[in-house]
Amino acid sequence: MIITCKKGAPQAEIDKIIKEFEDKGLEVNLIRGVDYNVFGIVGDTTIVDEKIVRANPWIEQVTRIAAPYKKVNRLFHPEDTVVDVAGIKIGGKENIVVIGGPCSVEGEDQICRIAQEVKDAGGVMLRGGAYKPRTSPYAFQGLGSEGIQDMVEARKRTGLPIVSEIMGVDKIDEFVENVDLIQVGARNMQNFDLLKALGMIRKPILLKRGLSNTIEEWLMSAEYIMSGGNENVILCERGIRTFEKYTRNTLDLSVVPIIKRKSHLPIIIDPSHATGDWDLVESMSLAAIAAGADGLIIEVHDNPECAWSDGAQSLKPAKFKQVVEKGRAIAKVIGRDI
Amino acid sequence: MIITCKKGAPQAEIDKIIKEFEDKGLEVNLIRGVDYNVFGIVGDTTIVDEKIVRANPWIEQVTRIAAPYKKVNRLFHPEDTVVDVAGIKIGGKENIVVIGGPCSVEGEDQICRIAQEVKDAGGVMLRGGAYKPRTSPYAFQGLGSEGIQDMVEARKRTGLPIVSEIMGVDKIDEFVENVDLIQVGARNMQNFDLLKALGMIRKPILLKRGLSNTIEEWLMSAEYIMSGGNENVILCERGIRTFEKYTRNTLDLSVVPIIKRKSHLPIIIDPSHATGDWDLVESMSLAAIAAGADGLIIEVHDNPECAWSDGAQSLKPAKFKQVVEKGRAIAKVIGRDI
Amino acid sequence: MIITCKKGAPQAEIDKIIKEFEDKGLEVNLIRGVDYNVFGIVGDTTIVDEKIVRANPWIEQVTRIAAPYKKVNRLFHPEDTVVDVAGIKIGGKENIVVIGGPCSVEGEDQICRIAQEVKDAGGVMLRGGAYKPRTSPYAFQGLGSEGIQDMVEARKRTGLPIVSEIMGVDKIDEFVENVDLIQVGARNMQNFDLLKALGMIRKPILLKRGLSNTIEEWLMSAEYIMSGGNENVILCERGIRTFEKYTRNTLDLSVVPIIKRKSHLPIIIDPSHATGDWDLVESMSLAAIAAGADGLIIEVHDNPECAWSDGAQSLKPAKFKQVVEKGRAIAKVIGRDI
Amino acid sequence: MIITCKKGAPQAEIDKIIKEFEDKGLEVNLIRGVDYNVFGIVGDTTIVDEKIVRANPWIEQVTRIAAPYKKVNRLFHPEDTVVDVAGIKIGGKENIVVIGGPCSVEGEDQICRIAQEVKDAGGVMLRGGAYKPRTSPYAFQGLGSEGIQDMVEARKRTGLPIVSEIMGVDKIDEFVENVDLIQVGARNMQNFDLLKALGMIRKPILLKRGLSNTIEEWLMSAEYIMSGGNENVILCERGIRTFEKYTRNTLDLSVVPIIKRKSHLPIIIDPSHATGDWDLVESMSLAAIAAGADGLIIEVHDNPECAWSDGAQSLKPAKFKQVVEKGRAIAKVIGRDI
Repeated sequence: MIITCKKGAPQAEIDKIIKEFEDKGLEVNLIRGVDYNVFGIVGDTTIVDEKIVRANPWIEQVTRIAAPYKKVNRLFHPEDTVVDVAGIKIGGKENIVVIGGPCSVEGEDQICRIAQEVKDAGGVMLRGGAYKPRTSPYAFQGLGSEGIQDMVEARKRTGLPIVSEIMGVDKIDEFVENVDLIQVGARNMQNFDLLKALGMIRKPILLKRGLSNTIEEWLMSAEYIMSGGNENVILCERGIRTFEKYTRNTLDLSVVPIIKRKSHLPIIIDPSHATGDWDLVESMSLAAIAAGADGLIIEVHDNPECAWSDGAQSLKPAKFKQVVEKGRAIAKVIGRDI
Repeated sequence: MIITCKKGAPQAEIDKIIKEFEDKGLEVNLIRGVDYNVFGIVGDTTIVDEKIVRANPWIEQVTRIAAPYKKVNRLFHPEDTVVDVAGIKIGGKENIVVIGGPCSVEGEDQICRIAQEVKDAGGVMLRGGAYKPRTSPYAFQGLGSEGIQDMVEARKRTGLPIVSEIMGVDKIDEFVENVDLIQVGARNMQNFDLLKALGMIRKPILLKRGLSNTIEEWLMSAEYIMSGGNENVILCERGIRTFEKYTRNTLDLSVVPIIKRKSHLPIIIDPSHATGDWDLVESMSLAAIAAGADGLIIEVHDNPECAWSDGAQSLKPAKFKQVVEKGRAIAKVIGRDI
Repeated sequence: MIITCKKGAPQAEIDKIIKEFEDKGLEVNLIRGVDYNVFGIVGDTTIVDEKIVRANPWIEQVTRIAAPYKKVNRLFHPEDTVVDVAGIKIGGKENIVVIGGPCSVEGEDQICRIAQEVKDAGGVMLRGGAYKPRTSPYAFQGLGSEGIQDMVEARKRTGLPIVSEIMGVDKIDEFVENVDLIQVGARNMQNFDLLKALGMIRKPILLKRGLSNTIEEWLMSAEYIMSGGNENVILCERGIRTFEKYTRNTLDLSVVPIIKRKSHLPIIIDPSHATGDWDLVESMSLAAIAAGADGLIIEVHDNPECAWSDGAQSLKPAKFKQVVEKGRAIAKVIGRDI
Repeated sequence: MIITCKKGAPQAEIDKIIKEFEDKGLEVNLIRGVDYNVFGIVGDTTIVDEKIVRANPWIEQVTRIAAPYKKVNRLFHPEDTVVDVAGIKIGGKENIVVIGGPCSVEGEDQICRIAQEVKDAGGVMLRGGAYKPRTSPYAFQGLGSEGIQDMVEARKRTGLPIVSEIMGVDKIDEFVENVDLIQVGARNMQNFDLLKALGMIRKPILLKRGLSNTIEEWLMSAEYIMSGGNENVILCERGIRTFEKYTRNTLDLSVVPIIKRKSHLPIIIDPSHATGDWDLVESMSLAAIAAGADGLIIEVHDNPECAWSDGAQSLKPAKFKQVVEKGRAIAKVIGRDI
């Protein structure tokens, strides 16, 4: 950690600052510059709260050298983490997983039918929303527990593990009991109460990046879960908010190599929510695989026009199958397989 | 609502689309254009889910004419809403309120001492965080219930109503019992489970704008609370995330006249979180008042350098007093008072 | 074009608005809604200036249905445009081109040596900056005309056509005479004087997307060039500015399928400027090809550590070769070739 | 300047890096950290090109401590700069200037009539666009030289100095001869050829912030002009591009205190372009004055509905007068005057 101090700071103030760090067991190196003095702080600076340091009026700037995360940091965990979701391995150098399913569960028949289509097309896990975060209170809010049970039934019939989004701490028991991979949605990426609670369980967590969150904040949210003791975290990029209006969000594929460098956690891509447009899903799926993603989570619906939410971004099963097949061919080029 | 349909759409498809809207009790007007056909949908379109409409492959574009919110909409409620927070009125044409206090409650002594300073300076309500949303799991997370009780004690001693941030549904009873104005933080602005639960109570809610949420999304979150039956909602702008790096966030003051036009709800400004820099707080506070805001919520600490969080953005009491006084003079110019 | 008019507008005002459009040869359809009246304007609305319409205080909102561009619009030109750059074809369904070279030309030896490396690795065109747009007046500004002549020499020795960035109208003659593909940089994407001047020549133009420009604005800038008569426009995505700090810019690969849908112009990707980090270039290059891009423009330097600008994002020739080879394998999967 | 070096870097590499800096006359301090080594570079680091440093694969991060600008930096020029525009002083602690006029000059009568209205309302300078940067090639592009001459006539009749936007280097002679304050528009803020040319003249320059440019980049563009020798630079904030859709741009008023801290140059605000909506201009104008701005530049038109561009954001003269009067009252509260 590098701390820039205004030139006129009195010696007593400088001594005080140095002492505060030394009391924390950190080593302080002082560099006297032309217009500023600089303190180089050596040691485990994750315990230092930048905001408190910055409150000193003599301090001009605080710059972290070491990342503020430890558990998720590849520096301290060089091997890829491979998360086991009911037998499906996510992460590592070889396998790429494809997860498919509707945005919302609409009933047992619908989800079982689509689950079978997903499986036939090469998907290895089923997605489906039972509790839906909707911008409008007047929009369909999901089937709730009934939807979860419909997912359970679809798993029973097809053998596909299931992933669904949790929206509150009070549903953790229900999810631990019924769901194989618990999704934290973009809007809850910094719902810290929820993250802490998910750190106490051992079910795998699919942590979506917030609409406007930096990669560092995203990794810090993963750190919340891991520091609680749950090391089964999978990251999922689903597009960020930018000024562009022709797409719903801007899919940031450069996160793939960056996450691989900064962290050991698996990273998958959601091209459906990122673009909001089924017609862009194929090209973004293939791009994600070429970029090195560990998996895809794609919306699939057998009748998108009648879907209860987000039909516009759902692939029909035949199209989904085609994406899986082309994706597999690209995976092979880069030494992986779907 | 205006729906653009691709030129080649078969008549049967057009008839089907028209029928779907008519079945919802809406009137459909068809305009045949050169390259597109356009449907103008007349009636209460808040019940229409745009995403479902857009799923039809013949549909090119869906544009809302009427806003998707009703309860918060000034069109249907032309009078300003004035929210009563334990006797303090927020909103309307005359009064401007100033709320002050530390980012975090650090103990009974600290909060009672600062509460008195806030009151002496002209503040009419006390802020203080007991449950803190922190990016890092290693940062101070707040005193919790103990902090709430310290706030209660400060209210007892000074008479100032208190505002504090709630982070989860499980704390609603505690907040209803102890807090006068319940704050929903920026990171929870789209925590819909929390919004629904807050719609069921009658305590006033201070709804902060999410870091990256549009004004429309913000009003939709207010609509969640109001549609549940709780009409005591106060909006609070606290800066949005942009590319700029010299400020923590970008304070968007143009929301003041826009909220006044679109909604009847009161709007206050938080210059401390918006800028992250105490040195910018005075000028942004005065600007907010000049822009027509109904109030300010400002961080005040008697020893910012030792504050447990966000000291860098806290004013010392003497500076806070100066801001209140200059603010009052500006308020008078525009026919209001603090 | 759809125009929303406030409900209380007097009939005389409505008649006036209708007449203004009819006088332009447009047809006006009026839909009377519950809270608004809506005019649907039919005809060639590219001639209508939205801002003028919006100035009428009775007008609430103006929404374009038809795109504001004509020449670049695929609707009126369904075939892919293939631009011929000194014999190299860019665009169409089959071929993908790879352009390589240093950020800045540093001298004849350097550029000729790198040109040979680019050619040996499979690159078909040489890039090199002679006039450099630099944020700081104290940074290296490029070799100017001397750099252009060094590029010409490199072309002579290798046969590779050359691309270089133009920064002002006064250099057009020099570029027409010497350069095969004239690049308009991101910062000049809306330098309309330059765009108009480039519309008057017939040399191919490589139009980079501005750091913060929407796809629509980008296509409008292409429309400037095309409406002047120069139809040889190639679009180039090079990353947009977002809040993310781990990458220099955010590469927006979803532009590839969107440009293919909205326009007939070729689209290539610059992964070097987008990421600012050579270590991300391979994965973003492969992703771009998988997404359907018509080409890549990649920075290559044989000694990045000594490069006079942007060494951090340059590939060494051996790495560049590897990217071309993997890219070719991915191109084949989607039925194309490099 | 702080440079973070990966832990495993060989000693020879470290020695080489140190030598490179020492050869530039800079002093290097090495701090050995736990996971990284850090070099603190002392001296005039504006001459160091960060990108070149970052190209070394052992370098992890480069952080500037001192700002990259010198001429515009308040650190080296503590007094406020006051720019004299044909007798009107802009900057300093007392005076606030108000500039008014139409977006586009539409003819001699129009501009002379509006100039008189601006003057009568308390405006001290006249704005008017003769060369217009328009997103669409089909929109009105301005009257050009004829428009400049109309402005000259309006100055003759009213005595108001005139400000107009320049779009290319080839117009500098015309502007130097006729215009009192030469505006560089947002889209040309990084047209470095233009900035360099404007550094060679002595006429005052009004430098608008680019739509998506950081304050640092903006100051670097001012540095271009000043380093050429022209010290008469006035900065103008006109809104930045964000995700918000209810305003055209987001007016960033926090630039006012930040510019005052970082630089000695005057800063004025353009609320008309920032909001794109005349109805927001009054509140943003008053806010700008309360925030400490040195002036306002406001669009005024006597018939906004018939304005040839941007009528939607123009005030009628009577409204403009009211803004000036309220603004004056607020200016007095903070010890200034209009």
